[in-house]
Amino acid sequence: MERRRFLVKAGGVLVAAGATAAIDAPNVIAQPKYQWRMATSWTPALDVLQGNAQRFGKMVDEMSGGRLKIQVFAAGELVPAFGVFDACSQGTLEAYNSAAYYWAGKEAACQWFTGVPFGMNPKGHYVWYYYGDGIKLWEEAYKPFNLVPRPSASTGVQMGGWFRKKINTIADYKGLKMRIPGLGGKVVAAAGGTVVLTPGGEIYTALERGVIDASEWVGPHDDMKLGLHQTAKYYYYPGWHEPGTTGEFTFNKKAYDALPVDLRRILDYTATAMHTLEFGEYDAKNIVALGKLRTEFKSKVEIVPFPADVMKALKKLAGQVNQEEAAKSAIAKKTHDSYNKFAASLHPWDVMSEAAYQNLISGA
Amino acid sequence: MERRRFLVKAGGVLVAAGATAAIDAPNVIAQPKYQWRMATSWTPALDVLQGNAQRFGKMVDEMSGGRLKIQVFAAGELVPAFGVFDACSQGTLEAYNSAAYYWAGKEAACQWFTGVPFGMNPKGHYVWYYYGDGIKLWEEAYKPFNLVPRPSASTGVQMGGWFRKKINTIADYKGLKMRIPGLGGKVVAAAGGTVVLTPGGEIYTALERGVIDASEWVGPHDDMKLGLHQTAKYYYYPGWHEPGTTGEFTFNKKAYDALPVDLRRILDYTATAMHTLEFGEYDAKNIVALGKLRTEFKSKVEIVPFPADVMKALKKLAGQVNQEEAAKSAIAKKTHDSYNKFAASLHPWDVMSEAAYQNLISGA
Repeated sequence: MERRRFLVKAGGVLVAAGATAAIDAPNVIAQPKYQWRMATSWTPALDVLQGNAQRFGKMVDEMSGGRLKIQVFAAGELVPAFGVFDACSQGTLEAYNSAAYYWAGKEAACQWFTGVPFGMNPKGHYVWYYYGDGIKLWEEAYKPFNLVPRPSASTGVQMGGWFRKKINTIADYKGLKMRIPGLGGKVVAAAGGTVVLTPGGEIYTALERGVIDASEWVGPHDDMKLGLHQTAKYYYYPGWHEPGTTGEFTFNKKAYDALPVDLRRILDYTATAMHTLEFGEYDAKNIVALGKLRTEFKSKVEIVPFPADVMKALKKLAGQVNQEEAAKSAIAKKTHDSYNKFAASLHPWDVMSEAAYQNLISGA
Repeated sequence: MERRRFLVKAGGVLVAAGATAAIDAPNVIAQPKYQWRMATSWTPALDVLQGNAQRFGKMVDEMSGGRLKIQVFAAGELVPAFGVFDACSQGTLEAYNSAAYYWAGKEAACQWFTGVPFGMNPKGHYVWYYYGDGIKLWEEAYKPFNLVPRPSASTGVQMGGWFRKKINTIADYKGLKMRIPGLGGKVVAAAGGTVVLTPGGEIYTALERGVIDASEWVGPHDDMKLGLHQTAKYYYYPGWHEPGTTGEFTFNKKAYDALPVDLRRILDYTATAMHTLEFGEYDAKNIVALGKLRTEFKSKVEIVPFPADVMKALKKLAGQVNQEEAAKSAIAKKTHDSYNKFAASLHPWDVMSEAAYQNLISGA
């Protein structure tokens, strides 16, 4: 204790001296080091998700000059896949990387922070987080849990999932046992399905053994990493249930607040940068995986679009489900309203820019 | 000199002491401070572009704990809008924020790093930069100029620009005097137009006085900031000439290499984070500006899509122009080939994810 006080004092004096020195003269300041633990909901096989959690730690290490070290653990190494929220809330972990809709049972609003059926695409979500009220509402929802959330990356527009039998009409959802989380899962339940919430690492076994009839995960690359292309023949698109899925890097509030401001900003902006890096990695790897599905696995996997009538019926159910879920708490209602208002305001501009260009390229 | 040596030595001693202390005990290390100057090609009225150059400086300041200060200058304050490349190359500036296609006269390859007519959308560009060879090729192209480029933000799919007369057929480009840079400008020239390269801050006067007949800039928000909605009646979309426009934060190589590695990474990742922040800000502000054009300026401005036949003709010319420009240098050829190969590989996945979802939402 005595020595520490000495160091701080010495540092203070030397900073003052440095401030009067020339630009290239060194300042000398006191710099505490921090060691954090971050657990994820991902198995190591999920190289994009787990790999980018590790990259997050590496980027923070690099930018902080080694003053904040984050040790990253896969699902089950420290806590189970779905135990990360509680562990971080209680301060057992300083950080976790997961997806907010897994915590719908704790707070219904969480579902909107990950993705909304028939909602905004990845870019739309980002604009809502940063320029709508997305991050503000997310912070409000997590405050009672002593957690500070930051949006991580989007997975891109997801695939609709793997089905052992074809979906021809909305009636085919009756009795269907499907792994699908969040608001999308509640839509499938409203259509008569039985919904289960299985961690990524356990989907293959459940689908392969027939415990479930269908499952969504992310897209070609991730799904193949889990072996899902060897469990069910029909691979549907587009992912109406998760068109703008976004993960989270979340910090224990006490640990976050204890950091000096430069390290807090490094955490914040690293999460922001991950959007570009991880989102981009998904595209780069999905290009390759989709190519494999269409060649190497051509006889085993049929890639099919959902029938238009099924989409129409699910969209109608989604509107009802979103309203029911929004009624569950005051913050869920605020989040639902903020999301819908922002999506409606963005639409006309999207139509004239991205959509108009997309149509031009597809049609020409 | 005597004092400086003392500081370094004192720092060294204290670091060694800190290394044996507990995690929360402070380390004390010698930390030089750096003061940089960054000039942009933007006028202060362009609040997104100039504002995000300033935000870049602020983020770097915050994350570096004040060790790297970047003073940001608008076009003309230190050097003219189009003088930033040379000034940074010569070491007069440590950094600049601009767009690479302005330097097409120095190296033809530069045009691809900003945007390509009928090319990839903003996300596609990003995936190419980070997971194709985009950044690698850009670094190679800038190496002879002692510059280190980093992609900054996308402006989003741009608008097609402001025209004093309607464009009904491709023949209407004959004799048209238009402000349009990069490959898009060469396409307009190939269609018979006369192309000029005017800095943003000078477009209003040129268009208002009839020195030019048409001009593109960015999109509703930026264009209105320049007053372009008060110069020409017809506002065309989509921006076929710049569907994925991306700016640049570029550093003088000697200044960049002289930084410690943590500050270099802070610069790199701040540029990456800007993609999300600045790109998002464009959307958020274009929503508002488009609304104004459609209400307040409804009688003065007509927002119109380009005719399909004109798009087809310009697309054909774009293919020829891209090849001609690619033939101008070895690095231009490599960049052209890399870009086209990546765009072709991304297309099938885009069709199944973003495009399929866009169609679903538009049609439902």
